[in-house]
Amino acid sequence: MAEAPLRQTPHTTVRRAERGSQDRGLAHAILDEAFVAHVGFVVEDQPFVVPMVYGRVDDTLYLHGAPGTRLVRTLASGAPVCITVTIVDALVLAKSQLHHSANYRSLVILGRATRVGGAEAERALRAVVDHALPGRSGEARPPTEQELRRTAVLAVPIDEASVKVRTGGPVDDDDDLSLAVWSGIVPVLTVFGDPLPDAVTGDALPVPASATSAVQR
Amino acid sequence: MAEAPLRQTPHTTVRRAERGSQDRGLAHAILDEAFVAHVGFVVEDQPFVVPMVYGRVDDTLYLHGAPGTRLVRTLASGAPVCITVTIVDALVLAKSQLHHSANYRSLVILGRATRVGGAEAERALRAVVDHALPGRSGEARPPTEQELRRTAVLAVPIDEASVKVRTGGPVDDDDDLSLAVWSGIVPVLTVFGDPLPDAVTGDALPVPASATSAVQR
Repeated sequence: MAEAPLRQTPHTTVRRAERGSQDRGLAHAILDEAFVAHVGFVVEDQPFVVPMVYGRVDDTLYLHGAPGTRLVRTLASGAPVCITVTIVDALVLAKSQLHHSANYRSLVILGRATRVGGAEAERALRAVVDHALPGRSGEARPPTEQELRRTAVLAVPIDEASVKVRTGGPVDDDDDLSLAVWSGIVPVLTVFGDPLPDAVTGDALPVPASATSAVQR
Repeated sequence: MAEAPLRQTPHTTVRRAERGSQDRGLAHAILDEAFVAHVGFVVEDQPFVVPMVYGRVDDTLYLHGAPGTRLVRTLASGAPVCITVTIVDALVLAKSQLHHSANYRSLVILGRATRVGGAEAERALRAVVDHALPGRSGEARPPTEQELRRTAVLAVPIDEASVKVRTGGPVDDDDDLSLAVWSGIVPVLTVFGDPLPDAVTGDALPVPASATSAVQR
């Protein structure tokens, strides 16, 4: 079943139309592959951008944090937020300096957060843990009532949003094509190393599936 | 010679003091290793966060873009900006869900941008090209006068800023240490693949030093 497109507004209209998209499936794929979001909010006219882990359940993005932080207080108050997730796929080397570029996939979500609790908060926290480590929430101890009280869970709808994608090689000016300058791309990859147990675990336990699945991505 | 620390203000004081630092050398190292910044700015109360490449010359960060974009127009007007650069070093697996974490190094720069021109702009654009590809500006065609007119270069001082760093393994509750749950880290690395020439270059030219140095980092 085709998914409804992301909501396009003047804020989420990409200026270079050939790079923009409102494809919801692509947005989900970017969110699922990356694992750090840059969360923007405003306090007294000053923007702040904070890196955060996140989880996704269907069309909702979840963040969490200590209730007293500037980010949580601001988002929980219903202030406008911008959440950007970026995956860099390659450096693009052109024959001229100014046509150098990068291949990337990025998603910008605009909206307002809502603080959630109860079963939704617990499900959200599992989604955060499982996001980069599939199945990990089933291996680790679940949160206690006290831990849940000390943790704010914020939900942001994945709705007013836009995807930007650049792929392919450099786009050089015709007059530059005969220059003896190497042009092409250098791929950029995020890879996971071998899991390293801490001193408490040592070699007493096998490496779990969650940590191995991260490596195999 | 020891460098002066970054300027600490209420905005750049890290709440969990053990993770915060005003070390200017560490800030430079983060900027030089990463190559995408997330740039936050505000238009009519709405925050926007945009991924951008950048360059550094001493204590100045440089961005560039087309003069008509929302980002360039807003920053060139002197509006407050937040530039965040994040490197993820590991996923941290604890014995409880809520002590899961990530090891990372991040830098947050607050300030206002100034549009620059002339020799400073040309030097800044070389710094952007050379940032991920050392020496590349000497291989590619320099900008023409017309290209320079069509490109806005923005300078942001690396001054009011703070570094946050998390390292090491999970920090579990004492009561959890006896749980039969694997704990430790999964390293995360950014790696460069083999350079791929485009169709124009093919195998007519050797892969340049700039693209190779990226791979060897």
